[in-house]
Amino acid sequence: MKHYEGFLIDLDGTMYRGTEKIEAAVQFVKKLKEKDINYLFVTNNSTRTKEVVAESLQQFGVPATPDDVLTTSMATAQFIKDENPNASVYFIGEVGLKQALEEVGLKYEEEKPDYVVMGMDREITYEKLTKACLAVRKGAKFVSTNPDIALPTEQGFLPGNGSLTSVVSVSTMVDPIFIGKPEPIIVEQALKKIGTAAERTIMVGDNYHTDILAGLRAGIDTLLVHTGVTTKEMLLAIKEKPTYALSSLEEWTF
Amino acid sequence: MKHYEGFLIDLDGTMYRGTEKIEAAVQFVKKLKEKDINYLFVTNNSTRTKEVVAESLQQFGVPATPDDVLTTSMATAQFIKDENPNASVYFIGEVGLKQALEEVGLKYEEEKPDYVVMGMDREITYEKLTKACLAVRKGAKFVSTNPDIALPTEQGFLPGNGSLTSVVSVSTMVDPIFIGKPEPIIVEQALKKIGTAAERTIMVGDNYHTDILAGLRAGIDTLLVHTGVTTKEMLLAIKEKPTYALSSLEEWTF
Repeated sequence: MKHYEGFLIDLDGTMYRGTEKIEAAVQFVKKLKEKDINYLFVTNNSTRTKEVVAESLQQFGVPATPDDVLTTSMATAQFIKDENPNASVYFIGEVGLKQALEEVGLKYEEEKPDYVVMGMDREITYEKLTKACLAVRKGAKFVSTNPDIALPTEQGFLPGNGSLTSVVSVSTMVDPIFIGKPEPIIVEQALKKIGTAAERTIMVGDNYHTDILAGLRAGIDTLLVHTGVTTKEMLLAIKEKPTYALSSLEEWTF
Repeated sequence: MKHYEGFLIDLDGTMYRGTEKIEAAVQFVKKLKEKDINYLFVTNNSTRTKEVVAESLQQFGVPATPDDVLTTSMATAQFIKDENPNASVYFIGEVGLKQALEEVGLKYEEEKPDYVVMGMDREITYEKLTKACLAVRKGAKFVSTNPDIALPTEQGFLPGNGSLTSVVSVSTMVDPIFIGKPEPIIVEQALKKIGTAAERTIMVGDNYHTDILAGLRAGIDTLLVHTGVTTKEMLLAIKEKPTYALSSLEEWTF
């Protein structure tokens, strides 16, 4: 196995499954820490702040600080900031998105924003959707944190941000720029944040159609771990393979 | 002009524009009434009850009773009733849909309904959307009152039921059966309600892409009136023409 200086690591299905930690993954990250290898947790969850994500990892015994986390909300905020540091933004979303936009200094504006951003919002209302539609029709650039259509929960599959976003895209006939996996933008933002060279950085995740595709599209190496969504059998049918595929992160040799 | 025994008549853009009545249309319906010709108002608005629709027409001086109205909510309820008189239904919608479903005797059921129905709901919540998604994934048949993506208002174009419906269709990957115009189902329901022969019934409306298409798809004659959405110029570019196109209903000769 090649030597990598940076690991971009998915969360659910890779570090844990719901409320249950994946021990091999915890040990894997501890090894990275010991060997002073850079790592960054990269998640499509737009609702949580980096502090909350780090805290939940710490509770599993994973060495993680808020600086080790890139949520899709943070990637979205940075993407807009890179395009236009003075942009005004109307957003639909929860505290994770709110904080991310504020931290990069983007102004909130409801009437005539430069950008409309949609993230997961379990307090979605018709009024919020109306403001987003009107602003997009007035010419605001339309961005969405992530295209996930469904969220796996104990209850079953709940509507994900990709499906909420479709209200505005269907109504305005304007397609959003999606930031999260499988789009490469979040990986590009992750590379900037982790600071390691692309050819020395690898994307690690359990879901071929989000984690691995995002890595492939961003042109970096990828490691699929069969602890979550994509099984060995499913991978057989897929043409463009990840660089590595392992049953467990325990099999990784440094 | 051919003699028709039944007129299916659109509302907004045909009978009135917003809060302003179209006098020629009022006189036209009065003439139908005098001549004892059947008519039925057919609307994609799912939120209002037939009583409220009739009342608003009466205020413009139009002879209209609740029996002269077919809302897309009523057409949806009757469509389900025709398929399965004992069906249970979970719905998202306002009073117009609620009343329509109750009036045909369909049972309300949240957990494992036979049908999920979506209509315009300005009190939409994530919880309502979640229930709809879970039920569709459990196998409920998915029906939507109408596919309108946007509602023209003084504020601008607000999200319409077609865009709200997309949350569930995108999340579950199940396409709904749409009932309202331009789908033929509402016209088929209207023909049953008005009771006149299809070849003696005509669909009248201002919008080629909803009213006229619905009539064409249902195989009946159509009359486009240029008092609303579709102008003469727009019609030039359209291949499949309505049977008649008039500047005003005043030009209709009985």
